[in-house]
Amino acid sequence: MVSKIDHLGVLVEDIDENRELFELLDVPVGRVERVPAFGVDIAFIRVGESLVELVEPVDRETALADDLDAAQQSALLHHVAFRVDDIEATLATLRRAGVALADQRPRRGAGDAAVAFLDQRAGNGVRVELVERETDVQLRD
Amino acid sequence: MVSKIDHLGVLVEDIDENRELFELLDVPVGRVERVPAFGVDIAFIRVGESLVELVEPVDRETALADDLDAAQQSALLHHVAFRVDDIEATLATLRRAGVALADQRPRRGAGDAAVAFLDQRAGNGVRVELVERETDVQLRD
Repeated sequence: MVSKIDHLGVLVEDIDENRELFELLDVPVGRVERVPAFGVDIAFIRVGESLVELVEPVDRETALADDLDAAQQSALLHHVAFRVDDIEATLATLRRAGVALADQRPRRGAGDAAVAFLDQRAGNGVRVELVERETDVQLRD
Repeated sequence: MVSKIDHLGVLVEDIDENRELFELLDVPVGRVERVPAFGVDIAFIRVGESLVELVEPVDRETALADDLDAAQQSALLHHVAFRVDDIEATLATLRRAGVALADQRPRRGAGDAAVAFLDQRAGNGVRVELVERETDVQLRD
């Protein structure tokens, strides 16, 4: 059902200020893309079979911006996204088991994926996202 | 230099209370192991090529216990660990570039790995660990 960590979401005040460490580690940061539905700019970094997603809130009136403000630091490990083969079936399984869901139905996320967040309570405070994608994200410089 | 996400560290008040979600997602939680050097019990969960490491502080007088208390939730996405092929060489590269390190030399972590944490400031607040292992962790029930 879960095949891998699709990505690890890291909220940042400024994508550019977070490039250097990854470049020193020889894992280059891809092109910045705007995701209007979430009010953010994002940049993906490929690390093995997974991605690190740097997420910069450009719309300050969003829950993501609030999360970063509350952390009182300029970068925050924010969510873990598991790749699933059938997101509707996984949501149905979790719903039957009484797991709280933030998204009852999948939404369109970055890279044209179907994504859904569990309620933060489901992870005892850790934000968990499910992601179904047809093909892996291709990084562009 | 970095080959993959070795593991994602999740601090938890109680490992058993965090099993159910993973088991519903069909990614079973391995056996609990004591790691005395860090004052914690841990359990690994394999997700694709990476691990999720549930870390339960059993010694409450440690920095890890303090981190969990400060978060005011019973689980906390705590650190991301990148697998490197030569941890000494990677630390030397980062040191030359002026990156702040918490561990100047590798320590022995869970699963007999050589591990070193960067200073939290290096990730602008995100805790980054480097891990060199001879072989992948084998999960035991």
